[in-house]
Amino acid sequence: MAKSIEELGEFGLIDHLTKDIKLFHKSTVKGVGDDAAVLNYGKNLLVVTTDLLVEGVHFDLVYTPLKHLGYKAVAVNLSDVYAMNAHPKQITVSLAISGKFSLDAVEEIYAGIRLACDRYQVDLVGGDTTSSFTGMTISITAVGEVEKKKVVYRSGAKEKNLICVSGDLGGAYMGVQVLKREKQVFKDAPEVQPELDNYQYVLGRQLKPEPRRDVIELLERLEVQPTAMIDISDGLSSELFHICQKSDMGCLIYEEKIPIHKDTITAAEEMNIHPVTAALDGGEDYEMLFTVPLNDLDKVKDVDGLSIIGYITDKSEGVRMQTKQGELVDLKALGWKSFDIDEKSK
Amino acid sequence: MAKSIEELGEFGLIDHLTKDIKLFHKSTVKGVGDDAAVLNYGKNLLVVTTDLLVEGVHFDLVYTPLKHLGYKAVAVNLSDVYAMNAHPKQITVSLAISGKFSLDAVEEIYAGIRLACDRYQVDLVGGDTTSSFTGMTISITAVGEVEKKKVVYRSGAKEKNLICVSGDLGGAYMGVQVLKREKQVFKDAPEVQPELDNYQYVLGRQLKPEPRRDVIELLERLEVQPTAMIDISDGLSSELFHICQKSDMGCLIYEEKIPIHKDTITAAEEMNIHPVTAALDGGEDYEMLFTVPLNDLDKVKDVDGLSIIGYITDKSEGVRMQTKQGELVDLKALGWKSFDIDEKSK
Repeated sequence: MAKSIEELGEFGLIDHLTKDIKLFHKSTVKGVGDDAAVLNYGKNLLVVTTDLLVEGVHFDLVYTPLKHLGYKAVAVNLSDVYAMNAHPKQITVSLAISGKFSLDAVEEIYAGIRLACDRYQVDLVGGDTTSSFTGMTISITAVGEVEKKKVVYRSGAKEKNLICVSGDLGGAYMGVQVLKREKQVFKDAPEVQPELDNYQYVLGRQLKPEPRRDVIELLERLEVQPTAMIDISDGLSSELFHICQKSDMGCLIYEEKIPIHKDTITAAEEMNIHPVTAALDGGEDYEMLFTVPLNDLDKVKDVDGLSIIGYITDKSEGVRMQTKQGELVDLKALGWKSFDIDEKSK
Repeated sequence: MAKSIEELGEFGLIDHLTKDIKLFHKSTVKGVGDDAAVLNYGKNLLVVTTDLLVEGVHFDLVYTPLKHLGYKAVAVNLSDVYAMNAHPKQITVSLAISGKFSLDAVEEIYAGIRLACDRYQVDLVGGDTTSSFTGMTISITAVGEVEKKKVVYRSGAKEKNLICVSGDLGGAYMGVQVLKREKQVFKDAPEVQPELDNYQYVLGRQLKPEPRRDVIELLERLEVQPTAMIDISDGLSSELFHICQKSDMGCLIYEEKIPIHKDTITAAEEMNIHPVTAALDGGEDYEMLFTVPLNDLDKVKDVDGLSIIGYITDKSEGVRMQTKQGELVDLKALGWKSFDIDEKSK
């Protein structure tokens, strides 16, 4: 019997719908199944990635300033381009908005979009607005460029490769938890002023993510060519699974090596959430997760803002984490993926 | 004082939001303002176009079979690529669906998407599904390729150029009128069987539009290089305005030359709609509107399926139509554009 959408999960659904796809063109180097498609139309490769952000699923207008929303919509697409080790060059933007929005509101969204374009030197080459009878939807497509020898897929991780992650994890998830809590407080008692001062770091991680262009540039300076790379949009566990599945490998990471900011830990403990769970399953951190050959250990081991969290193993060893207590746990058991994974960021 | 969204209109809004855009990259040949963006990454040019289809605005699931919806979503994007005189090569698809849809339903949409990909030899290179709490949204981005000397913009029309249109117009609009009428009949009396037999032609025009690859191929065989081209998605009037505005020209078309299918006329008269109004303001015909040098008259004048409907004039003469009675009317007066132009196709 056919599985349901829920049983398949988001990634299973895409695999199911796009399996056995016939490709006609030599210019299609890589289709469905990575952070971006890869096209060959000239000296360099092009990467193309698209994201659909839906009100109520990916953002809540109650606590998302419109300018931040526009900025973030661009940022998450650029993050996918950087995850191919490519540089974004052009974006198109489609916006569906209901009649309740004023011109000022749309201008705010575009101000955020254009700020991100300026900061990351990306050309806005297509714009489209349409009406919507329900919520707001933003669809952005980004085109980037990368030298043929520099493109990085999810599928290139090899045994004994080091697993590295940029920045710190779990903050964006704790940010959205704080926002949801304050939304509830506001509903219950509108006269109470929100208490957000202690949460500046995690709120910033949620509302103002920056794509990690600097990591791509750093790797170039260090002369490190990652063997596999992905951006952390759905949580560390999910992304490790993607890399291991596409590379036909397993991995072992160490709980104590997962970088978590002190403010993320404080917020998590206050809300009775295990900080490591926020890092593994939270998502939306938009940090870079990548693997490098063991030979590159000296190049990456003492770099500020990079953490080596584990290594790639044979496939038979699964996708595992060694806890601080020395126990080996199967990461799948920690709640990886479901079709409503986005629900978490509501 | 700032204008409202309604005052600006859809195209005015995009102009407003994207004015003074800073471009960083030499690879950006043409940004906002044509059927597609044009990028230069190699020997040939790339065109990139994106469309967002929103349930309740662009389609009504009450009378749109899901497979047709998937097919049409691809078709309208390919139409934009052909309108640049380019050939589509790759598409990405993003789909937001609510939990009420079964896997079967999503498979139906994808069956339509893949059928269109097969028929037009386009590679599906990116797929993304997400949940939605409200209606369904489909966002498709298409990438196409065109030789540098063959790309056609909206802006190249010159005085005395002939204005040509492929196929016939107004049918898709009459199709949606029939569907809306039957929906109302069904609401009022669910036991009445819909009477659709007499409307096969116009229904097909609405539900199964085909992008005009054959027109692009025909022009190539005829060795005709259009000076300007656009696909007819919003109605003949709207597209004439786009070409005249971008080319800094005016035009004169002849009512009697506008190609309208006999079944479109029958349906329009039955519903007390002027067939020419359906052609001018209806939209969704996805025919090609293009201009050619007067020298090419002999090449295009006796071609089946092409109609010469008028010519380009100096800008000072405006965008006009000579009626069958010999009267000159300003096309703007016929109701061109509003932010809710899409409402018509509900």
